[in-house]
Amino acid sequence: MSKLRVSAFTLSIDGYGAGPDQDLENPLGVGGMGLHAWMTGTRTFAAMHGGEGGTTGVDDDFTARGITNVGAWILGRNMFGPIRGPWPDEAWRGWWGPNPPYHVPVFVLTHHARPPITMDGGTTFHFVTDGIHAALGRATEAAGAKDVRLGGGVATIRQYLSAGLIDEMHIAVSPVILGSRCSEHVPTSQATHVVLTRA
Amino acid sequence: MSKLRVSAFTLSIDGYGAGPDQDLENPLGVGGMGLHAWMTGTRTFAAMHGGEGGTTGVDDDFTARGITNVGAWILGRNMFGPIRGPWPDEAWRGWWGPNPPYHVPVFVLTHHARPPITMDGGTTFHFVTDGIHAALGRATEAAGAKDVRLGGGVATIRQYLSAGLIDEMHIAVSPVILGSRCSEHVPTSQATHVVLTRA
Repeated sequence: MSKLRVSAFTLSIDGYGAGPDQDLENPLGVGGMGLHAWMTGTRTFAAMHGGEGGTTGVDDDFTARGITNVGAWILGRNMFGPIRGPWPDEAWRGWWGPNPPYHVPVFVLTHHARPPITMDGGTTFHFVTDGIHAALGRATEAAGAKDVRLGGGVATIRQYLSAGLIDEMHIAVSPVILGSRCSEHVPTSQATHVVLTRA
Repeated sequence: MSKLRVSAFTLSIDGYGAGPDQDLENPLGVGGMGLHAWMTGTRTFAAMHGGEGGTTGVDDDFTARGITNVGAWILGRNMFGPIRGPWPDEAWRGWWGPNPPYHVPVFVLTHHARPPITMDGGTTFHFVTDGIHAALGRATEAAGAKDVRLGGGVATIRQYLSAGLIDEMHIAVSPVILGSRCSEHVPTSQATHVVLTRA
């Protein structure tokens, strides 16, 4: 049965899903890219972006699981772009260029209506203004037998969690502190040890 | 130079430092003991409690570091016992029996004065009613050249963090969720992967 999944959602040790001060230069906020180092070095990530090489193993496996059997996505509006409030025009078409890495319908939660945008490679952005349940209904229908992946950000995931709608979450905790200093990060099968020292 | 350290402070994946409903049967709250499985299985922990055997390796190393070079402790009052409000009498002498595992002076933060208690093995409990700075001053003096270890709990650590007084923190994130279900926990050098599913 189709599930609502969060996959490869990455948090810093101090619990942030992105850095501060998102803008055009920093789609994930300042320092936010460092969160995703576990993923951006993998073979699957390289292949998704037309490259070659990259690591294999656990991190690659989780990256691959995240894009397997996904029939639709749901994104909060800030994941689609840095514009807040009403759309000034229709120029903004997402962070990802003409061929975004989704390749399926993507439902963007927003308070401001806008016609769908058909991109190259199978991605269509739909703008949903009537709430999280409506977005999930439309995404589930679009996904067919496949799963719906909830991309984030944090506020969007919280809304779906509060409503009890998420079936599975994969969270990756990165050895990154956004605003302090992590001097040691030693995972064992029993615990993840983290030593924080004054910057 | 003497430091104020937090060592081996264990959090669940969802950020709890203890379970709910602390009482005489559950000094760490319900489910709280599971947080510390990484430590209670080690050789150092066994030796601290007069036992033998136990694991060696990273978890044991962090356990040993936690008790090395500690000249005094600071504890929040709830770590000393389950009694809230004024002391009804002087019967309560801590969770640990006649010979507590500290073996140095321990400064307990409380709003309710009480004479010091000298235990076996070098532990003396001092009750500090004039705040976190006063407790740190007394503990630092008692520790001499050694460090002061801040044992917790969460509220006490937050107070010292807010005041900018902590020099180093070692946090161990355990693959435990207090109130949900963690179906996978796979640490790599790059991230700690956690999969949460509906209970």
